[in-house]
Amino acid sequence: MFVSKKEKIILDVDTGHDDAIAILVAAKSDKIDLRGITVVAGNQTLPKTLKNTLDICDFANIDVPVYAGMHKPLVRNQLEVSEVHGDSGLGDIPFPDTTKEAESKHAVNFIIEEALRSDGELILVPTGTLTNIAMALNLEPGIKDKIKKIVLMGGACGAGNATPSAEFNIYTDPEAAKVVFESQVPIVMTGLDVTYQALADEKVKERITKLDNRVANLTLKLLELFGETYREFYGFEHPPVHDPCTVAKIIDDDVFTTKKMRVDIETSSELTRGRTVCDFHNRTGKAANAEVAVDLDKDRLWDIVIESLSKY
Amino acid sequence: MFVSKKEKIILDVDTGHDDAIAILVAAKSDKIDLRGITVVAGNQTLPKTLKNTLDICDFANIDVPVYAGMHKPLVRNQLEVSEVHGDSGLGDIPFPDTTKEAESKHAVNFIIEEALRSDGELILVPTGTLTNIAMALNLEPGIKDKIKKIVLMGGACGAGNATPSAEFNIYTDPEAAKVVFESQVPIVMTGLDVTYQALADEKVKERITKLDNRVANLTLKLLELFGETYREFYGFEHPPVHDPCTVAKIIDDDVFTTKKMRVDIETSSELTRGRTVCDFHNRTGKAANAEVAVDLDKDRLWDIVIESLSKY
Amino acid sequence: MFVSKKEKIILDVDTGHDDAIAILVAAKSDKIDLRGITVVAGNQTLPKTLKNTLDICDFANIDVPVYAGMHKPLVRNQLEVSEVHGDSGLGDIPFPDTTKEAESKHAVNFIIEEALRSDGELILVPTGTLTNIAMALNLEPGIKDKIKKIVLMGGACGAGNATPSAEFNIYTDPEAAKVVFESQVPIVMTGLDVTYQALADEKVKERITKLDNRVANLTLKLLELFGETYREFYGFEHPPVHDPCTVAKIIDDDVFTTKKMRVDIETSSELTRGRTVCDFHNRTGKAANAEVAVDLDKDRLWDIVIESLSKY
Amino acid sequence: MFVSKKEKIILDVDTGHDDAIAILVAAKSDKIDLRGITVVAGNQTLPKTLKNTLDICDFANIDVPVYAGMHKPLVRNQLEVSEVHGDSGLGDIPFPDTTKEAESKHAVNFIIEEALRSDGELILVPTGTLTNIAMALNLEPGIKDKIKKIVLMGGACGAGNATPSAEFNIYTDPEAAKVVFESQVPIVMTGLDVTYQALADEKVKERITKLDNRVANLTLKLLELFGETYREFYGFEHPPVHDPCTVAKIIDDDVFTTKKMRVDIETSSELTRGRTVCDFHNRTGKAANAEVAVDLDKDRLWDIVIESLSKY
Repeated sequence: MFVSKKEKIILDVDTGHDDAIAILVAAKSDKIDLRGITVVAGNQTLPKTLKNTLDICDFANIDVPVYAGMHKPLVRNQLEVSEVHGDSGLGDIPFPDTTKEAESKHAVNFIIEEALRSDGELILVPTGTLTNIAMALNLEPGIKDKIKKIVLMGGACGAGNATPSAEFNIYTDPEAAKVVFESQVPIVMTGLDVTYQALADEKVKERITKLDNRVANLTLKLLELFGETYREFYGFEHPPVHDPCTVAKIIDDDVFTTKKMRVDIETSSELTRGRTVCDFHNRTGKAANAEVAVDLDKDRLWDIVIESLSKY
Repeated sequence: MFVSKKEKIILDVDTGHDDAIAILVAAKSDKIDLRGITVVAGNQTLPKTLKNTLDICDFANIDVPVYAGMHKPLVRNQLEVSEVHGDSGLGDIPFPDTTKEAESKHAVNFIIEEALRSDGELILVPTGTLTNIAMALNLEPGIKDKIKKIVLMGGACGAGNATPSAEFNIYTDPEAAKVVFESQVPIVMTGLDVTYQALADEKVKERITKLDNRVANLTLKLLELFGETYREFYGFEHPPVHDPCTVAKIIDDDVFTTKKMRVDIETSSELTRGRTVCDFHNRTGKAANAEVAVDLDKDRLWDIVIESLSKY
Repeated sequence: MFVSKKEKIILDVDTGHDDAIAILVAAKSDKIDLRGITVVAGNQTLPKTLKNTLDICDFANIDVPVYAGMHKPLVRNQLEVSEVHGDSGLGDIPFPDTTKEAESKHAVNFIIEEALRSDGELILVPTGTLTNIAMALNLEPGIKDKIKKIVLMGGACGAGNATPSAEFNIYTDPEAAKVVFESQVPIVMTGLDVTYQALADEKVKERITKLDNRVANLTLKLLELFGETYREFYGFEHPPVHDPCTVAKIIDDDVFTTKKMRVDIETSSELTRGRTVCDFHNRTGKAANAEVAVDLDKDRLWDIVIESLSKY
Repeated sequence: MFVSKKEKIILDVDTGHDDAIAILVAAKSDKIDLRGITVVAGNQTLPKTLKNTLDICDFANIDVPVYAGMHKPLVRNQLEVSEVHGDSGLGDIPFPDTTKEAESKHAVNFIIEEALRSDGELILVPTGTLTNIAMALNLEPGIKDKIKKIVLMGGACGAGNATPSAEFNIYTDPEAAKVVFESQVPIVMTGLDVTYQALADEKVKERITKLDNRVANLTLKLLELFGETYREFYGFEHPPVHDPCTVAKIIDDDVFTTKKMRVDIETSSELTRGRTVCDFHNRTGKAANAEVAVDLDKDRLWDIVIESLSKY
């Protein structure tokens, strides 16, 4: 089932490799009206994730406003993880000097204003830590009735990647995740359970290679750099491409199947910090607060990605 | 030592009885330039604490802008505690219909703008839960260098009042308190250790009675209502008047003595939630992050309160 | 690979349905020297789990000493869960009056003495909560060098059954589990990841029916009662038979495959209490402390069970 | 009010300086029938605390059986704190080679047997971490009706000494403390709130000097060594003598006043680990589980100590 009209979305990113691809896919989809890109610290510090976002938009001529958001988590200190995304957060690809600049408005205020303006039609698509979204929900609780849904990359029913218990985006700011999951806004949780199936294997890379345009070539380079990291740190043969799964879900609802369930966020223990406790078998009897992605249609995912990349 | 010029302050309140008195004292002090009053949920829901604040300002002809702030804590749900402050949060005193209205700007944005504008001279004086202050520090971390200090009512080295471990303002939003205490802004913590010494006894009430003006008479009524509650719920003979202690400290630095120490906030355990862990004897070796009030000069306190009340 | 000599084991049980089957299988295996059965509270109170254990031994003429152990967890209160195992903890099967009696020695002391006596050859096989084992390790730490290994039923890498996070045996006494997993005794963790594969389906029940002896018939009845519960409470078509998996592992090491990893026990958070945090991908870099069962050879399991049952 | 017959007690110690004095006082009191001394790890490792206990008994010709107990806390690892009590745990006083030996029975079993034997008359007097007592209550829950009371040194309503939150004995094994405080055995908690008043000042030392016997001279030496530590680490002018306060309470009930209240033990947070949460004003509404020492009659304390020391 393809959606029939353009969905208004805000991409909320901490641009590393796969956020970059999510931006590239969203910007060229004819199913998506990309209202703006908001940036948060996460994979790297805010100045770096902001620069990466502007670089990508500039390189691909994506004319969408970019807003700087939160420098650090709601309550905790910011973690740095240069090992996975490199010192720049984007694998140290040298971009030409960007002329694109961020808007002066704060990302949190942009989210609030856009939500109030779009009257129930806005979809938030966070691919990084959830601090911007939680801050917006905190600052203006009224937006929770104005947001159609939040399709987020984060969490895991199974094993985590930041720790055995937790996926990185939730781990970095578990309190923000708690605010979001308890907000009563409909949530689609795109976690490691499906994104670890979204592997950019040789066949995928061949398809992208054939596109042979500047942006497709950049994407290939991002996949290669990301692939090296995943080989080195996690022992993956091919890199999982987490963040574009969220955008693909907006473009084609059938890209993955979901199961409704209660998801609670662990905030009090260090050992299990940031775990998305997924009540798969409804042991708690609590009402569901999320649709959790449980299975991915890989071919469909890559069709969507490649269709967008072909338009550059 | 009386300060020689007017201190710019924002009072951040969840107006119950003693917040009301803090407002009345601050508004008439010739040591204080009251830039605005920001309101937060706490003793009662935001609509009620806002109405109480507007009622008090209206009744006493206090011409200061009032800003509505946060409806609920950073991460947790809002508690209601009508038992202590009554259903209205202000002992159910019937005020005439208020014509005063809150400003349209959000309290958090006002705090940020005023901090940036006043360039290092602004003192924040929160007498309720710390959610507004934490949100401002989160949203615009740059203000931490622009705020002279935060003189807050909250916490306890000894026993709490919300629970055996915690004072009510910190208990209601411990994560906000953690953000504030770890912000590196200079903090004066005016906790139960001194505010429980600030008892409005018969002598104090006599002095206020003698003033015999509308506002002094209202204050007397507030003290009586508050006194009933403290007798009933806590077994106090006379009511402690917590919040004005903060304002008094701005007016006269000698009203209480302080000791510099490390204060950490408990956020992970339910049993000790919201405890201000005061490292009185520097057992941890950590650098101090707060001046903690340890002893009150009661006569000086009441002189300050009565001097302001005499001006109505 | 079948082991060539009899392994000395102590079964440590909180006899409900599947503990009963574990006892029946162990008692007739020619690979096992069953030194004693120790009993702990868990599925039900100690008097009930003890009575069930004695009833089973009496019914099946199992002449092995039985020792009563701990009434409650190390630190927490005892949970009762009559819903799953019935009021008696054994599905309310009426047994004739048992003449068998428990030994007077405390289970914890028996474990200690047997460990010291058997000099490195003893295998502990707990199929219930780990309180007896933890108490023995606490009371006489020297036994940790005298125990060959602990092959336990408990925990889960994936979803739990007591809560979304935790398997019942670990959930009931997480502190005991922490003591055991940190004891440095070699551990084989037989968790839900494999025991949920040990389903007593129609084919299995047919094979047991054909044996047509008193004990096989009792086993069938236990499976039927257990099956009803699992249909009602968990929506399983066939009941998983958790506890005999441990005994089967002693009899035939190839009955399931294991992976060495670090397993930490969550004890501080209520949300994730009792989770066995399995570091499947060695994200923490910590040394392994357990062999975790990851895949079951179902046919082999049932061959082992049926071989023992055929001897009654 | 002096008690009229001898109270049967077991002293449970982790002998450092003040445990030593508690032993010396108890052994010569005509109000006390010292049934045995049980030893636990705490101030130092078990071999050291055991050796210190035997050394003291040997030196002072105290003919009481000594039992070795727990090497480490119920759930956590053992802490070492040689800084306060020196490498030996007893200030490195050179004792002659002790001929006294510990009994072969485990301290935990001795406590259980003695409790069952003395039928409601036994008082446990732990002056160290509560692991032995908790293990005994766990292993044989029936003893809780056979123990008259537990008079323990530990905890604090105010500031701790191990951390800002916690007193050392409770901090080292908070789970054991939780077991003890929730056991329903009557508890007298002798915490820092009174023991910090038990200072061995010049006047006290003069009185002891005048006794001029071997044991009094040893006591003086212990006080001097302990005094140096307290000056260096805590900035005390005179050393507090914690542990003998418990023994003094048995000898003379009026040596300190107590208040009944609920005391809960923090076990889940690292920040406040081991805090004895004292519900002084009954904010929780829970029934009292302890009599907490709130004020000390110093003269009476030292009279008791000196009376015992005079008998050597």
